[in-house]
Amino acid sequence: MIEEKYKFIAEMAVTSIEAIKRTGIKVVALKEGYAKMVMPLDGNINHVGMMYAGSLFTIGEFTGGIIYGAAFDVDKFYPIVKEVTIRFKRPALTDVTLEISMSKEEAQRIQDEASEKGKCDFVLNLEIKDANDVVVALVDGTWQIRTIPKEMGNPFK
Amino acid sequence: MIEEKYKFIAEMAVTSIEAIKRTGIKVVALKEGYAKMVMPLDGNINHVGMMYAGSLFTIGEFTGGIIYGAAFDVDKFYPIVKEVTIRFKRPALTDVTLEISMSKEEAQRIQDEASEKGKCDFVLNLEIKDANDVVVALVDGTWQIRTIPKEMGNPFK
Repeated sequence: MIEEKYKFIAEMAVTSIEAIKRTGIKVVALKEGYAKMVMPLDGNINHVGMMYAGSLFTIGEFTGGIIYGAAFDVDKFYPIVKEVTIRFKRPALTDVTLEISMSKEEAQRIQDEASEKGKCDFVLNLEIKDANDVVVALVDGTWQIRTIPKEMGNPFK
Repeated sequence: MIEEKYKFIAEMAVTSIEAIKRTGIKVVALKEGYAKMVMPLDGNINHVGMMYAGSLFTIGEFTGGIIYGAAFDVDKFYPIVKEVTIRFKRPALTDVTLEISMSKEEAQRIQDEASEKGKCDFVLNLEIKDANDVVVALVDGTWQIRTIPKEMGNPFK
């Protein structure tokens, strides 16, 4: 379920970047500190009938942006992605899902440091699962939030 | 330039997987042991005017497949991708390119091991460059070739 106050973020996240929109990724749940996404197999299949590696990457990389929207103050910070490692464990033969949670305390710690230093890294270790709850890929990434300079509009609003 | 014998591989590589085709990636040079690709900024731009991280991933991940086609015996082996790390160094504000070379000796060593053991990993350390020859992202990946079982058709032919 997508909470009312996050409906705009959920919609914008999947539509504002054409290359993400093309994949058909959906945000199926979004509330403070929590998101769940689905990447459809349809439209993302490779030459041997499993999900294309790049579409699995996209659901992983997308997660840094969506948790930014669900856990951080989007009026004060903007996110960038620094690096992502994806390890392919099993063929993904169904739609896949990814769930992400971040506690209020962790979000506060990251924002406090970003407020003080102008930026703060955050690391996410994620599991992409198929329809049978089998882990098909592991994503370990480092993102960063940075304080928005006063003269810069927030690109996410 | 794409050598005549590699024209089919170059064409198939960018068209056979819909999610790759959508990005508009092009193979601009292909010969034995060498390939060069271009990912256009157009159609791959993000919310802040630079190339979307997933499209940069795609040109990196694509490289394992294209060098397979240009350096290995596609009648004996098929490729898989095991893991990829991408580090984003600078905003990509132009089309980007990636060049890959593999010596005959290295290709032979990998194929010899795969013939003997049924599979062999190969590691590629790649630089994605913008139109000013500045490195915008580093891609370090591990792919693997496996011997094609006799009962299995080669999905790349």
